[in-house]
Parts: sequence; structure tokens; C-alpha cells
Amino acid sequence: MKPIGTIHTPFTTLEDMPIQPKGAADVIGTIELEQQYLEGLADLNGFSHIYLLYQFHKARRTALTVTPFMDTSPRGVFATRSPLRPNHIGLSIVRLIGVEKDIVTVQGIDVLDATPLLDIKPYITAFDAVQQSRSGWMQAAEEDVARKRSDGRFAG
Amino acid sequence: MKPIGTIHTPFTTLEDMPIQPKGAADVIGTIELEQQYLEGLADLNGFSHIYLLYQFHKARRTALTVTPFMDTSPRGVFATRSPLRPNHIGLSIVRLIGVEKDIVTVQGIDVLDATPLLDIKPYITAFDAVQQSRSGWMQAAEEDVARKRSDGRFAG
Repeated sequence: MKPIGTIHTPFTTLEDMPIQPKGAADVIGTIELEQQYLEGLADLNGFSHIYLLYQFHKARRTALTVTPFMDTSPRGVFATRSPLRPNHIGLSIVRLIGVEKDIVTVQGIDVLDATPLLDIKPYITAFDAVQQSRSGWMQAAEEDVARKRSDGRFAG
Repeated sequence: MKPIGTIHTPFTTLEDMPIQPKGAADVIGTIELEQQYLEGLADLNGFSHIYLLYQFHKARRTALTVTPFMDTSPRGVFATRSPLRPNHIGLSIVRLIGVEKDIVTVQGIDVLDATPLLDIKPYITAFDAVQQSRSGWMQAAEEDVARKRSDGRFAG
């Protein structure tokens, strides 16, 4: 498992970073892909949204119980999107603005600057758009997400 | 990056496997989580859908250009969900049926039996449900996906 590129964003510290793409809807980021993988970007331009899989590179430990930004109760880590999961892999859905050579420009990006990228996958409406879903403890807090900002709690 | 559990499904060979969860809508699978991570499953039961991140453990090579099951033209691998990507990480959205001790039962699972699990994340409606999206080359082929089956092309 090795990085295939680097994600550049305006967020240089964990503090005051939006906690999910919906809170960063206007934020533009760029992905700089390693040259040897350029060929793999062909045909990506036709997709309006893509998944980014990346390393939570500032997460140095695992916590099986965490108190999410959006809640006051401790929760099992697999019921959250906390970076402190056993494998420090993050997942974000972003809007694809364009692909030019080794630079992929995206909108709605919610990760730290210099985040190592592991994979890009197309968001495929037929596979990925869940028509009806229930979001457990998160449901009540959902409407607040656009206003929330992170703090240092997941830095270590 | 190490497996946190194992996914059990009825699919023991790559041949005749559905190529995405939508083609496996009724298929039940179970995840056997490693004992040391059990605590992390708390609160997961409230979610109707979850992401599974896993290793494409039968993929032994990388191909930057692939011809997807659903197409006849070669495409850049990042514009597909092919296993032959630089990091062999797979992503599926499945319906959560229930959690009982170390066993997570899911529906709509499209992976090989004995697939190593890397992560479970909750599907959060507010973050993950893209209201309008465009699926590039896939769009025209989308309606066929439920009928298609895999073959051996991504085995090596």
C-alpha cells in the first residue's frame, strides 16, 4: 500500500477544518498524481463525482471508542468516520472539476493539505446512490454538520 | 495496513460472481471481525448501510488501462472499479442486517469469500448521498449491471 499521489488543500492544520465534504462544499483542492500512474486517469473526466481514498497521515494511534465531532457520546469507531480507526484509511466523495495531465482538480474537499492519496474511484450512480438510508446516532446531528469545525482531538 | 476481519460470501470463484452489489442485491454475507476490534462495532446497528473497504486479495498485478466488465472499450483504471488498481483496495456499499458479537451480517455483498476486510464505515446520508451525478462511460451501460457476471479477467 503506497501513495499514488498527494492531495493539496487550503487546510494546513487540523483545527478549523471542515469535518466532512458537505462542510467544505466550495473548497477547491488539487491532486498531484505520481507520473507513473497518469495513464490510469483516462476517461475519468466523464464522471461528476469521485471517491478519494487516502491516508489519515496525522493519525498515529487507534481508538476503538471515540467521541465524534458531531456528538457528545462515545461511539464505536466503526460507527464513525474518525481517523483513529485500525487502518488509517479515509474516504471522501468530491466533485470532479477537471483532469489536466497529472493534476486532478476537485471541489468539496475536506482533508489536510499534503494528504497521501491511495486511490481514485468513480462515483457510479447505479452502484452508489442509496435511495433510502438511516444514519443511526448521526441522524439527529446531521443538520449541524455544515457548521461544525474540527479541533485537535484526532491529531494524535 | 492489516486485515481487521474476514468477509464470508457464497462466491468462491471469480467466475459467475456479480460485479457490483446491485447485481447481488439479495446475497447475504457475514463479516467475522478479529476479536481485538469488537469494541469498535458499538453503535453500528443504527445504520442501514455501511461501507466495506477490503483487499482485492486475488489481484496480483496492476493494469493502468482495463476493459471493464460493462464495456468493450479500454478505460483508465481510476475511471473503473477494477481490482487491478495500484493499491488493491475495494469499496462496496452494503445493507447492514445486524451485528451480533463479532459477526456482522450484511446484504447485497459482491466480494469473494474469504476477502480480507480493512475497514467498516457508516454510510451517512448527509455526506454520502449525491443528489445528482453523471457517470461518464458507465452511464449507458448502467442498466445492464444487474444482469452481468464476472469472468476470470481480473484474476491475475
